[in-house]
This record gives sequence, structure tokens and C-alpha cells, in this order.
Amino acid sequence: QRPAPSSPQLATPAIERRVNDLLKQMTLEEKIGQLVQYNDSGYQSATSPTQIAANPEANNNVNSMDLASSGRLGSMLNTVGAERTNAFQHAAVDKSRLHIPLLFGADIIHGYRTIYPQPIGLAATFDPDLVQSLARMSAEESTTAGIRWFYSPMVDISRDARWGRTTEGAGEDPYLGAAMARAYVLGYQGTSLSNPDSVAACVKHFAAYGAAEAGREYNTTDMSEIRLRQIYLPPYKAAIDAGAATVMSAFNALNGTPATANRFLMQNILRDEWGFNGLVVSDYTAVMELVNHGIALDAATATRKALLAGVDIDMMSHFYDTKLPELISSGQVPMSVVDESVRRVLRVKFALGLFEHPYARGTEVTAAVPEHRPLVRKAAEESLVLLKNDSAGQSQSVLPFSTDARKIALIGPLADNPGEMMGSWSGGPQLADVVTIRSALDARAKQYGGSVTYAKGTEITGTSEDGFAEAVHAAEQADVAVLALGESGAMSGEAGSRAYLDLPGNQEKLLEAVAATNKPIVLLVFSGRPLVLDWAAQHVTAIIEVWFPGTEAGSAIADVLYGDVSPSGKLPMSFPRAVGQEPLYYNQFPTGRPPFHADLTKPPGPDSRFVSRYIDVPNDALFPFGFGLSYTKFSYGKVALSRPTVPLREANRESAKKVITATATVTNRGNRTATEIAQCYVRNLGASVEQPIRSLQGFSRITLKPGESKEVTFDLGFPELSFYNAESNAVIEPTHYTVWIGGSSLSSDEADFNVTP
Amino acid sequence: QRPAPSSPQLATPAIERRVNDLLKQMTLEEKIGQLVQYNDSGYQSATSPTQIAANPEANNNVNSMDLASSGRLGSMLNTVGAERTNAFQHAAVDKSRLHIPLLFGADIIHGYRTIYPQPIGLAATFDPDLVQSLARMSAEESTTAGIRWFYSPMVDISRDARWGRTTEGAGEDPYLGAAMARAYVLGYQGTSLSNPDSVAACVKHFAAYGAAEAGREYNTTDMSEIRLRQIYLPPYKAAIDAGAATVMSAFNALNGTPATANRFLMQNILRDEWGFNGLVVSDYTAVMELVNHGIALDAATATRKALLAGVDIDMMSHFYDTKLPELISSGQVPMSVVDESVRRVLRVKFALGLFEHPYARGTEVTAAVPEHRPLVRKAAEESLVLLKNDSAGQSQSVLPFSTDARKIALIGPLADNPGEMMGSWSGGPQLADVVTIRSALDARAKQYGGSVTYAKGTEITGTSEDGFAEAVHAAEQADVAVLALGESGAMSGEAGSRAYLDLPGNQEKLLEAVAATNKPIVLLVFSGRPLVLDWAAQHVTAIIEVWFPGTEAGSAIADVLYGDVSPSGKLPMSFPRAVGQEPLYYNQFPTGRPPFHADLTKPPGPDSRFVSRYIDVPNDALFPFGFGLSYTKFSYGKVALSRPTVPLREANRESAKKVITATATVTNRGNRTATEIAQCYVRNLGASVEQPIRSLQGFSRITLKPGESKEVTFDLGFPELSFYNAESNAVIEPTHYTVWIGGSSLSSDEADFNVTP
Repeated sequence: QRPAPSSPQLATPAIERRVNDLLKQMTLEEKIGQLVQYNDSGYQSATSPTQIAANPEANNNVNSMDLASSGRLGSMLNTVGAERTNAFQHAAVDKSRLHIPLLFGADIIHGYRTIYPQPIGLAATFDPDLVQSLARMSAEESTTAGIRWFYSPMVDISRDARWGRTTEGAGEDPYLGAAMARAYVLGYQGTSLSNPDSVAACVKHFAAYGAAEAGREYNTTDMSEIRLRQIYLPPYKAAIDAGAATVMSAFNALNGTPATANRFLMQNILRDEWGFNGLVVSDYTAVMELVNHGIALDAATATRKALLAGVDIDMMSHFYDTKLPELISSGQVPMSVVDESVRRVLRVKFALGLFEHPYARGTEVTAAVPEHRPLVRKAAEESLVLLKNDSAGQSQSVLPFSTDARKIALIGPLADNPGEMMGSWSGGPQLADVVTIRSALDARAKQYGGSVTYAKGTEITGTSEDGFAEAVHAAEQADVAVLALGESGAMSGEAGSRAYLDLPGNQEKLLEAVAATNKPIVLLVFSGRPLVLDWAAQHVTAIIEVWFPGTEAGSAIADVLYGDVSPSGKLPMSFPRAVGQEPLYYNQFPTGRPPFHADLTKPPGPDSRFVSRYIDVPNDALFPFGFGLSYTKFSYGKVALSRPTVPLREANRESAKKVITATATVTNRGNRTATEIAQCYVRNLGASVEQPIRSLQGFSRITLKPGESKEVTFDLGFPELSFYNAESNAVIEPTHYTVWIGGSSLSSDEADFNVTP
Repeated sequence: QRPAPSSPQLATPAIERRVNDLLKQMTLEEKIGQLVQYNDSGYQSATSPTQIAANPEANNNVNSMDLASSGRLGSMLNTVGAERTNAFQHAAVDKSRLHIPLLFGADIIHGYRTIYPQPIGLAATFDPDLVQSLARMSAEESTTAGIRWFYSPMVDISRDARWGRTTEGAGEDPYLGAAMARAYVLGYQGTSLSNPDSVAACVKHFAAYGAAEAGREYNTTDMSEIRLRQIYLPPYKAAIDAGAATVMSAFNALNGTPATANRFLMQNILRDEWGFNGLVVSDYTAVMELVNHGIALDAATATRKALLAGVDIDMMSHFYDTKLPELISSGQVPMSVVDESVRRVLRVKFALGLFEHPYARGTEVTAAVPEHRPLVRKAAEESLVLLKNDSAGQSQSVLPFSTDARKIALIGPLADNPGEMMGSWSGGPQLADVVTIRSALDARAKQYGGSVTYAKGTEITGTSEDGFAEAVHAAEQADVAVLALGESGAMSGEAGSRAYLDLPGNQEKLLEAVAATNKPIVLLVFSGRPLVLDWAAQHVTAIIEVWFPGTEAGSAIADVLYGDVSPSGKLPMSFPRAVGQEPLYYNQFPTGRPPFHADLTKPPGPDSRFVSRYIDVPNDALFPFGFGLSYTKFSYGKVALSRPTVPLREANRESAKKVITATATVTNRGNRTATEIAQCYVRNLGASVEQPIRSLQGFSRITLKPGESKEVTFDLGFPELSFYNAESNAVIEPTHYTVWIGGSSLSSDEADFNVTP
């Protein structure tokens, strides 16, 4: 049987009636128009000689305004600003025969004008409610510019730090990824898609794009159906279940079939299994790229394969509009398929209320909104992950700074760099809005009678050491050196794959030079991905991973450095010791020869050779998934389970939501109020198919006063306990489960139960 | 329908009669005895607390002599020497009730006492006839010690240089891998298994062990069925088709199911599809390790899963003998399954003629055989791959050395190191047999009135620079410095995974120090895998990859350095520029955004960003698959095809062997006789499933005199032109093919044809 429609808002009888009424009036050209998308320059360059050869027309310029005026354009991308969107919208609504409004989509990934952390940073908050609020906020801002569709959230699981788009997603874990995916969709789409301040979410990239082999952008992906379903698909599914109106097909091939021509993904799974009733748009020129993938020798074949596989809208390829007419007239594509795709597009437009309010709403937001600053500052604070905090021989840890008068040397190419606080995908914000670290620390230090001496030291990808001496001198004169090092925003994001994961340029050399002063060092790491911080972890006093924090970067960092806020972020991805460990993730399979208690820091000896290991680096992450320190200390009590066994018949149904409950008491053992992210991990031993050594199946943010205790509770049911068997069906079997509750993926407090036959 | 039995020698009516007659007489205990294998110390240690808990008996000592005497032992491993094998054999034959002989297996990977290069080095020869001769030779040597079963060939495709067992296989390519697999089997098994100097081949490790994730030994593997069939299975299939009598199940899990409990692999593919009628043995304690894999909570379950999946012999786990009795009495394992496994074991023993000649044959070989030295020297010569050969500002390339009097500085920890000439898996040879580089070059230099000054410089994993000065001094005094650097044998092989692929220890520093003398430098690289040679490739005059050459290491290297032989080896694996490129292989999928002609040596610019690339290293290999220089220069003429099109109905049948023929003329443009390995690559565009950018589908060794030309011919049929479609069936579709013929995977001479509908 077919499942219920994923979005009830797209399935109302009223919408269905309007869609069908309109469809009846449409010419073939107008229908095809709804299935194409251009940007406002209208030009799309074929990306290769092969492509140009495959479809000479595909290299023609198109005039988007003409197309809009004549009903031959359905949607537009990255047309920004109310004036421009309204101009195109007037052309469509006023001039085209059927007055069908355009839908304006844009790459709004982490805020429109008030910018919050990159998605990888938001994932570190483990705070879906916060993410939902931020998503709502950016929808409210963007809709004032006429944008009603975000190409977000990117929910691709990434287990390889080399891949650049790690920065756009929630990291390596399917459970966390699903929670984040849901939060974005609920925030973007609001209480109703039809609200003028709602935007349609576009879940991307369907599917498994994050598994790009060797971490190289756009590279092929290949995996078993079990891995696809167990690791990669859950966040997409969560987004669809949350009502996401649209999906974007991915650039990559999966098991030899490009995602953009993959009927198994878009029809069998997305529509037939999950009941998705929204529209699917290709990624940018992805239909054209089917020629490069080698599964189409010409544009007509690429068009046919993409449409029949389930891509409704051709983004920028200029293939659908040039090739569908002949494919339909020759019978290679049935008109019914085109009609169904048009229906999907129109459903979304009706559901968004575009026919009622096609234009940008209210007063256009053109700069960071003051009322939104507290929220993005909170987000940035929560995204910071404290990785190390030693005392450097003093009586207490270097962080937080005491409020005594204190001299700070602020060093590094990211210390006074407003543009780079944003990371990738942030064309919109104005640099003047950004609070840099330097400005925030300057203000804070003065407040306490201290001072900040700034020295850039080097460039992000610098080779010159000319600035080192100034930086070292500043450190020598200071009580503490704060180094703001790391990547530029452009080093991650799309096509930001790296084969080296070190600090770029000569920044590590700068760090070594400053560390040689023996002053306490606080390293702030900017990155869109896990970096190799091996040297720093051994030699630096304190390390905070700050990702790219956004508009309030400096404020949030100052809040954490000075202890106004205790850091609470936890890593959403494993930080490797060496790039040669990638892909690296916590929820591995056990192998037949786990290293158990072998000391992997030493070369193999007689008893430690024939185990699953490298001979030159330990297996584990330098900083593991779920890890993050606080300014206080949390302790965990014993894990308690609501019962020792669960009968299989109770558990093994999709509707079984709470078959067993795990609880533990968390206590704040320190002397300041702080927030902890308690995490619940599960392992399943004895199943018919190998299972990960542990898998996150719950988390909970709790704020505790000094000495305070609270119980955290995790309900485990079919979603948490099931796995995919060799036939790729989700099942629970009579097996043995272990449950851990703790502050990272290394938590050791556990309890066990059996599912009994 | 069932296919024909893979080995007719195991399927004769006479053998079947004898097997059934014997089986009828056997007690359950005697049957189980045939299904267990121990070494002669008899002890196997459970490798983990979990395993001991799972089966306390599994940690008991067993007495192999007692077991053999009482018919409770079927085969033994790594019992070496005629005296010891005969002693055990006498116990079995003379004392046990049914007098069933033992079968002695051993890890004879690259020779018994006369040692030839590691399999990765042999793969570089592209010379299956040579490999067959070497395999024959080692069978002849080993059978004098009673060994009739080799745990070889390892045919695991390895596309990740981090994995240590790259050294034991034929590298990254399925076509080359299949050719080598076939050669080993034909050599080991000879004209008839029943010859006393034949050994049964054991094809390992079934299956896909080489795809260990992140290159970490024993790690899980996960892939689509298409990739499994198209890339990983062909070498196994070739070995089975060549009549291999036995197969070893692998340590790894494939898509969540451990290979040792994987019925899809061992029954559906191996036996049902391929008609394999030999026996399957587990890898060492692999049955026990099913507990660690987490798919069995106890020894009985592990035993049941392994046997029912198709593992006939339990190597060293002590699970089958302790657990099968209760599994049979409880009906969890049918007696018919045990009987069938016993039949498979007995078939191999009868086919080997063990009942007629159970003991070690002839005079035992205990040291390198003088008559065998020319063959292993030839193998070592052919295995050397010349990667670079510059002139260092002189009128001609540094290699080969002129025979003028010449002073050589011979430097490095591998220059005078007999033990390390062997690589891993070489317990047997005597060091006194080995010709080191130092001894061979000493002799050769004297012959021409030159001299060799030796300086070790450093240790293989050295940190001290104390020896650098002596090495630098030696280079300063010499005409040329030869540096023998690289890995120890133990750095590759089983459990030899590395996260770093650089020269180990401080060897690169030594190289840099010697290179600073500005003397011509010849770098000899010892390794069981591709290393990162980026610095060397830029700064060193000549580089030869020598792998681990074996007993005649020094002689072969001297032959090549002095030009007695022009190097002819070609790389069987891609050498990366950085470990962060791994897995790296030439037969990649194209992606939708190939970099085309973008200059990837530069950071991305506006026109070179959004392509499949890294931002910090070019995509390609430093030295690609199939690459290797010669002392002469070969040119290739145009590729000619026997016809421009092939009708689909002619091509799309398994039996279609030569549907089109590609030819090209190769000319020796230099002034010395040399051998070239001409390679034929194919690409298929427009198929229903994405295909590699090129795939090796033929190669040919040709020796040409100066100025001589020869035509090379490659017949292409269903095996070369078919691929696996989305339903995992091998098919040919009406698509467009390109054929290249040239001297590496970068060859650019091509011709095209279509398969027409």
C-alpha cells in the first residue's frame, strides 16, 4: 500500500482542485516552463566541451525576463533583493498568459542578513529547538526579499573530513542529523507554508552525496543498501516526515547511477516508500551533467532519464525546455509524466500562497537585524566546543579568563577578519555588521582594566614569516596569547575538498613560534570540518573549536573566554589524529579483531600486531564524536533501565515507541552553572547483521547549578533499537543490548537488556 | 541450472566413489576431524576476553599429534620441514583408524627457499607466464617438505595503499589481478593435482578483504553488488576457473555480514554461480572471530553460522570440534551439511593423491636452489619499475651506469640488509642465500674498475642523524649516490596498515641531506605498497621502485643499474601524491564535473573551482597505474579496429570472445633492445550504469630491438566489453566504446566503435 502523503499541506482537496484546473489550461510550453529554473542572468555555461557537443542549444543564453513574461519559467534561483524578485514576479504575474507566479529559491544556509554559525557549528549545539528558531528567523528575513524557498537543509551525512561540504551539514551521525534536519524544516516552513513569512525547505542532496569517495567533491559514492538506509537516509527521512515540501537531487552517482537519474532513490524510496508528495529539483546543471557521468550521450537522453527518474525541475541545464518537446512528440516521454511533475510544482506554489501574495512581504531586511542579534549570539556561544583546557602550571585552568586586569596578545589571520567569520555560503551579509574577535575582546578587556595587543602573524594560506616576530613579541609581553587560526570559509563548502587537514599555510609554524614563549596559549580553531590538531593538542594550553560563528562571532567568543557562558558544544564529527585515518567515525563496526586494550600509541609488538589497527597511529579520534569540555565538571550516575528484558513481539513493530526507558542522574560537580549535553548510546550484539560498536539514540540538554542533579530519561523503541537486516528491512531481533549514558561517545556507564524471543 | 564443476579433477567418478566409500565408514568424531585444522604447536589463543567467555574450551590447548593419531585432525598449517610433516603424517596414516592422510598447508607466498619478489612486485612484471613458472618452482621446492597446499594466491584487489596486504596481491586492477590469479593457480597445481610435486592453491580472501575501509587492516568493507562483481570478484573467478581446489574465507565483514558467515558469497556466488567444487577453509581463527563481529553471542552460534554459510574447515578456532556434536544432536546443523563438507575435504585429498603418496617427496630443499636462481633473478629484474631517469645536467640520463670506472656511494638501511630483501611472509629462507645490493654492486663495480663506498646513514625507522655525515661524505666523494630506502618487510603484509605513506623514520631527511650534495642520486624504493614520493620525484635524479625483490635482490638491481637489462616493470597500483588522496585508482568513475583541463596544481580559480578536485593537491597519481620507464623509448602507432561497429546480438553473449580486434604498432625508437608492456584500455560511454573512465582489458609483453616495430593485437569480446547493470547482470548494451593502446593508463592513442542495437 502507498503511505500517507508526507506533507498534508500539499495534499488538500482545495489545492488539488486548483492544480488540476490550472493544468488543464496550460500549453505544453507553459507546462515545461514550470519545470525549468534559471537565475536572473539567465545564462548557464555548459561546463565542458562534451556537454556543448551534446546539446549546442544548452550553451545559448536565455533571457529570464522574457521567459517569465511568456510563462516559460517556473522558478528562479539566487535572485536576491525585493526589487529584483518583484520585477521578475511582475513579469510572470502581470504579463504571462496564465499569471502563474514564480517561486524564488536561494542558497540561504545559515541566515540571510543576520548570520548564525555554519550548520556544522549548529550541529555542535545539539539544540534542535535553537536551530528551529534560527531557521524561522532566517525565513522571516528572507521573505522580505521575496525568497520563499531555501536550498536547505543539507542533511548529507559526512564521515570524511576531507569533504568540503561537511560545513553545510550536521556531521557524521544519523540520529543527530535527523534531529537537525527536522528542526530546519519546522523552522523554515513555520506553522503553515501559506504564511507569507514561511519558506519551503529543500532537503538536499538526495542522496548520499556526503559519502564522496576519498572525500573528493562530486566523486562517486558506493555502498550497500543497508548502509544507505541505516546511516545515510535517516536525516532525509526525518525532513520528509517533518513536511519538507521539496527535495534536491544530488550531483554524485550512487552505485553507478547518478542521483539525478536514480529512480530507485526518487521513486522507490522517496515517493513510494516515504510518501513524499512535494517536488524534486535537480542540483545546479545536474541534468546536463548526466552527459559527463557517461549515462547519456546526448541531451535528449539526459532529459528523459532525469525526468523519468523523478526530477521535476531542471535547474540551469537548459535541457528540459529544449528537449522535452521532441521527447513528448516522439512518445519517449509520456505527457502524463510531465503533467505529474507540473502538478508537483504547482502544489508547492499553491501551498505557499504564492498566487495570493506573490511579492516580497513587508519591509525589506538588508542588514543584520538588531533584535535578531541575541539569538545568533546564543547560537554562536552554544556552537563553541572546548577541546582542551589545561592549567599551564597554574592553580587553575587557563579558561575562563579571570576578570583581573589581564594583558592579552591576540594573534592570527582570523582575529580581526569580519568576512571570514561567516564561512562559506554567505554572500549576503554586510561586513560592517560583524563583531570581530578583536573588537569584542578589546571592549571586554577594557571593561576589566586589561588590554589587547593584536598581531596578525601571517595570512590564512601564508608562506611569509615576516609577521612572526611581532606576534611572538606580543605574546611575550602578554599574560596569555589567544590565537585565532584555521581555514578561510572558502576552504570548505562546495568544492572545498582538502587532501591535507592541517592548519593551512604556515599557521602551525606561527603557533609553534608563539608556543615557544611558554605563555599560556588559547587556540581558537576556525574550520568547516575537523582538522588535524595533533601538535596543538600536545603543546597548547587550551583549544576551542569555533567553526564559523557568524555575525556575533566576536561577542560569543568573548562570552566564552571570559566565562559569561560555559561552553556546552559537543563535536558532531570525529577529529582525526592524521588524515590517513579518514573516513573516521565513532559508530564503526567492531571487526573480528578489535584492538581491545592494546596500546596503539606504540608500534605493534607480538601481542598487539594482528589486530585491526595502523602501525603508525592509534585508531581512535584525537577528539571523538560527542566530546566537549565545560567550565564545570559533570558526573553521571549508574544507568537504570525500566526493565531487564523486552519481549520481541512488543518491540518489533514500527509503532513501538517506548518499549524500554533508560535513565541516569547527572550532577554538576563544579562551582558554576553550566549546560551539559547528555548522550544516550546503544549497541546491539548478536544480530543477524553486524552492528556498530555504539550508536547515538538520544540526547538531552540540561542546565545544572553547582551541586545540582537531574535525571535524564531516554525512551527507546523501534526507531532506536531496530536495524536493517540482510534483506534491507528494519527489524528487531532477539538480541543483547547495551545502553550507555554519558557526556560523549566514550561514555562508560552502561546497562544491559535482552530482547527475548 | 547449475554450472559445470570448476575443477574436473575433483569431480571424477573414481574420486566420488572413494569419497563416499570412506565417508560411510566414518564416525561423527572422525568427520568433524576432517573439518578442523591446527598447527603443530596445537595451541591457539583466543584473541579476546569476549571469545574466551564465549567458549572457555576454545582456550584449551590441543595436542595435534594426539588428534592426528586418533583421526580427529584433517589438516595442519605451517608445519614446515619433511621431518615434522612426516611425523604427523605417520601418526595419521599409521595410527588412526581409517588411515586418512593429513593435508599440510603453509603460507608460501613468494617462494619456499628460493625467494622471488612479493606478489605486488610480480604484478609489476605483467608477465603471467613468469609467475606461473615461479609458482611451479615453489611447489616443487615445498613438496619436498611435505607441503601440498599453499595459502596463496591472495587475489584481493587493493585500491588503498594504506592497507598492508597490498604487498601480497596484484594491486588495484581486476584484469591484471585475474591474469595473475590464473597464473599462480596453474603453476601451483601443475598439470595434475595428483602429481607429487603439485600443491593445491588456496584462493584468498573471499571476498573483498582488500577494500578494508580507511585502509585499516581487518576493517569492514561495504560496497554495491555492482562494484563487488565488476572490481573485486574477477580475480577470484579467474582462479576458480583455472581449477583452484580451495578457497579461504576472509576476515572482513562485507555489507555487515562477516565473510566467514556469508552464504551469499560462499554458496550463492562461489558454489551456485561459479560451480566451485573444492573446499573452503576459514582464515586463522576467523570462525571464533564471528563472536567479535557481534553476529554470534556464543561459540555454538558462530560454528553454526560459519558451517551453514559454507566454511568447510575451521582453521585454529577450536569451535567446530567442540561445538558441532551438540549442534548436530540438537538438529541445529543437519548431518548432511557436515557430510558435504567432509566430502569436499576428502575430494581434495584424493585428487592430490595423498592416499597414494602421503609423505614429503624426494630430497628436501632447505636452502635456495642454485638452478632456481636464474628464474628468481629474472623475476626480480622484471619487477623493477623505473619511475624517473633524468640526466642531472649531463648529456644523458643517469641510468644505466656507464661501464667506465665509477665511484658509487651506496647509502641507506636497505643497502646491505639481506633479511629485508624478502619483505613480509618469508620465514623460510636462509639469509646466507641472499645477494644484497652491496655485495652485487661491489662485485660489479670492481669488474669495471670502479668502487663502492657503503654508508648506512640511518635505520629504517631511525630518528638519529648520527649516520648522516658519513653518508653525505660518501656521496661527496662519489660520482653517483645510490640510496636504498623504504619500508621494512614488516611494515606491510598482514596487519601492516599505515596512516602515513612517507618514507619511514628519518629516511627522507637523509635523502634530502644527500641530495644537497648535488650529486646524481639514484633512489631505490623498497616497499610493499605505493609510497608518497612527492619530494623525491621533484629532487632526485632517478627513482626505481624495487618492492622486495627476494633472494637475487642485489643481482637484479645491479643488472638494471648497469643496463644488462632495461627495466620493463609497470606499476600495478597508483602512487599517490599525498595519503589524503586514498583510495586512489586509475579506473575511476568520471563524475558529473570532471576537471577536464583545469590546472589542478594551482588553487581553484573562478573557472576551476566547481569541479571534482581537491583544493590542495592535484587529483591524479604522481605515478599512475601501468606507468614505468625504459632505457629505450617506445612509440605507438595509431589504434586500428577490425570494424567500426558491432551488432549487439553478436556481442551480448557470454561466449562471444572476439567480436572486435584492436591493433597498434609499437616501435623501439632507442638504441638498445628492451621489453615493453603494451596495454589496452577500454571505455564505454552511454551505458545504463556509469562506467570507469578507462579499464585495462589486455596487455602484451613485447621485446624489440633498436628500430624494430611489432604489431600488438587485442581481441575484445564479451569478457572485455560487458559490465554489470543495475540488476547486477553482466551485459553489453548498444553504446559507444573507446579503445586506447599505449604504455600506461595515460596512453592517448585511441579509436572508437559503436555497439549497434
